[in-house]
Amino acid sequence: MAVRCLLIDYRLAKTRAVAGLSNTVMTQYIGIERVKELVARKGAGQFIVGLAREIEADYRRWREFDKSPRHAVHSPVGVIELMPISDGREYSFKYVNGHPKNTTKGLLTVTAFGVLADVETGYPRLLSELTLTTALRTAAMSALAARWMARSSNRVMALIGNGAQSEFQAIAFYHMLGIRELRLYDTDARASDKLMRNLAGLDLPDLKVERCASTSAAVRGADIVTTITADKRNAVVLTPEMIREGMHINAVGGDCPGKTELHGDILKRPDARIVVEFEPQSRIEGEVQQLHASFPVIEFSDVVNGAVRVRENDQQVTIFDSVGFALEDFSSLRYLERLHREAGSAQPELDLIPSLDDPKNLFRELMPAAQVLPRVRAV
Amino acid sequence: MAVRCLLIDYRLAKTRAVAGLSNTVMTQYIGIERVKELVARKGAGQFIVGLAREIEADYRRWREFDKSPRHAVHSPVGVIELMPISDGREYSFKYVNGHPKNTTKGLLTVTAFGVLADVETGYPRLLSELTLTTALRTAAMSALAARWMARSSNRVMALIGNGAQSEFQAIAFYHMLGIRELRLYDTDARASDKLMRNLAGLDLPDLKVERCASTSAAVRGADIVTTITADKRNAVVLTPEMIREGMHINAVGGDCPGKTELHGDILKRPDARIVVEFEPQSRIEGEVQQLHASFPVIEFSDVVNGAVRVRENDQQVTIFDSVGFALEDFSSLRYLERLHREAGSAQPELDLIPSLDDPKNLFRELMPAAQVLPRVRAV
Repeated sequence: MAVRCLLIDYRLAKTRAVAGLSNTVMTQYIGIERVKELVARKGAGQFIVGLAREIEADYRRWREFDKSPRHAVHSPVGVIELMPISDGREYSFKYVNGHPKNTTKGLLTVTAFGVLADVETGYPRLLSELTLTTALRTAAMSALAARWMARSSNRVMALIGNGAQSEFQAIAFYHMLGIRELRLYDTDARASDKLMRNLAGLDLPDLKVERCASTSAAVRGADIVTTITADKRNAVVLTPEMIREGMHINAVGGDCPGKTELHGDILKRPDARIVVEFEPQSRIEGEVQQLHASFPVIEFSDVVNGAVRVRENDQQVTIFDSVGFALEDFSSLRYLERLHREAGSAQPELDLIPSLDDPKNLFRELMPAAQVLPRVRAV
Repeated sequence: MAVRCLLIDYRLAKTRAVAGLSNTVMTQYIGIERVKELVARKGAGQFIVGLAREIEADYRRWREFDKSPRHAVHSPVGVIELMPISDGREYSFKYVNGHPKNTTKGLLTVTAFGVLADVETGYPRLLSELTLTTALRTAAMSALAARWMARSSNRVMALIGNGAQSEFQAIAFYHMLGIRELRLYDTDARASDKLMRNLAGLDLPDLKVERCASTSAAVRGADIVTTITADKRNAVVLTPEMIREGMHINAVGGDCPGKTELHGDILKRPDARIVVEFEPQSRIEGEVQQLHASFPVIEFSDVVNGAVRVRENDQQVTIFDSVGFALEDFSSLRYLERLHREAGSAQPELDLIPSLDDPKNLFRELMPAAQVLPRVRAV
């Protein structure tokens, strides 16, 4: 199927070239099939490692970005959001929906796509799927934050919530944090079954996977606790007595108003350090929505830039309160564009923007040459 | 070229069907070539007439829409905007740039594309070019407003500014307002040459086109005055002494902060009635940015719904202060989708969203079946 695609598109590209459409402005396209191909070429682990590097580099130049909160349109069944960002040279936005009941119709809760454009011309350069990519970038971001926040040596991770994102987290922490033991828990046993089955199919040598009877059983002895549950309410997935000195908590599932996973007292531990992505957005959407607006949080850019050292000793509890920020999608689109180019081979392109000999003569695009008959009395 | 496209895509569609991808969720795609085809099938005039009908129907149900100002990212050379809107059943956004200096590089000042999505699922249904379509919808909106605002009988229109949008305006007013004489002026004589050449190629019987030496010469004797100049500054294209009793002014070119075309005294005429699309946006971007925020303006929805009668007599001056609003793009995307479906024939579709047997098993998408080897010690 993918190969057939390539052949067909190669012929299409050739047709265009033969037709002499030199002035053609085409938009690159990366669909689901192509992303699967790009991930397969590197392997999911190395794909995530490379993406984390890209995200880290962009967080280092945080001040260059024109940042704004997402634009959301809510309905009784879900939300549709636009997440724009620009560094003055490139502009990107992500379209993303959140519809918890979609799974009952056999559809995904979250889907996404995005566009990368040139600020200099305003022309869109790349349209890409971002559903699979968002799962990969969320895991990359989690592991990247953990590298800056967790203790230097980590072996055991509790994975609470074994749904659509859990494999990605497992792979990211295996490759980037050295996690070799996963302790799983989900209220839905079938979710854990699925995660174990998928992990069993991967080349992750020396990974031990244990299914646990409860969240507290899974958390026991963990260096890192990742919560990635889907319930859209103020849940209490982690309670204060589960938390041990030195733990790093990667709180991914609480990501919109009214959806949290941690008991407020965990956040308020005197020894806890809370890191967020973009403070104005996290105050609304993150775990810290439970706290007073003046409660201190650290922005991740200050961590990577060395302005703040999160962890001062091995006893502190660190919390990455992750909601996902537009910068990470910007990084992802640039990363995909590079891999797409490096992978080569003729790919479908979109005729989304007209290419004109005379840009002031837009209407000419609509006029068949044969129709140019002087029917009008020009005085 | 277009035909070749169809054949290739038909084969692609067949390949998918043979492969048994029944659960496939594909996004419809309308590129430049397809829009040209859809416009050619109806003819530009009838395309605009049909689109105006669609826009009018949507303005009638104005209150159903979740409206917000556009999201803009500015740079020294231009702006990139996102324009979202929803009626609770469907959601659309338009991506549009404005880069006045693009023409020096052989590129368009304004390009656009948009997406139509289902609110129920959040899934994108259609991705379409909107550069050509925006020109068509802007003209449709202009003529629609004029139908509600101008005197009942109109023959002569002055067309000030003969750039990329001017043909579309000419066609819309020929078909929808009965304009049979166009009086042209542009500071760039080549722009008027181009407009006359393009109009000469169209089937617009009985249309008289006259090139004039100045704006005031063009405006003299006109029933309707359309200004559609491109200069990004507070220009004074129309001055008070040019305006005669009963005229309708279709002010299209002033559409962003610092960009206006009318002398403020025209707006302040005691007999003038000013109609805008969405007041909060027009106060920032329209001609009325020159006026105090309390100066009375009428929203177009109140006109089509009969709440306000704009014109009380044939002596009043009416002004449509047009900036373009997201609702018109929403209408355009729905209109294109219908024409696309009616026109039939196998068309390219985009694999923008994954189709899963189990929507909770997103990672499965990335795993080749052959890779499912139990390498992990599951305890």
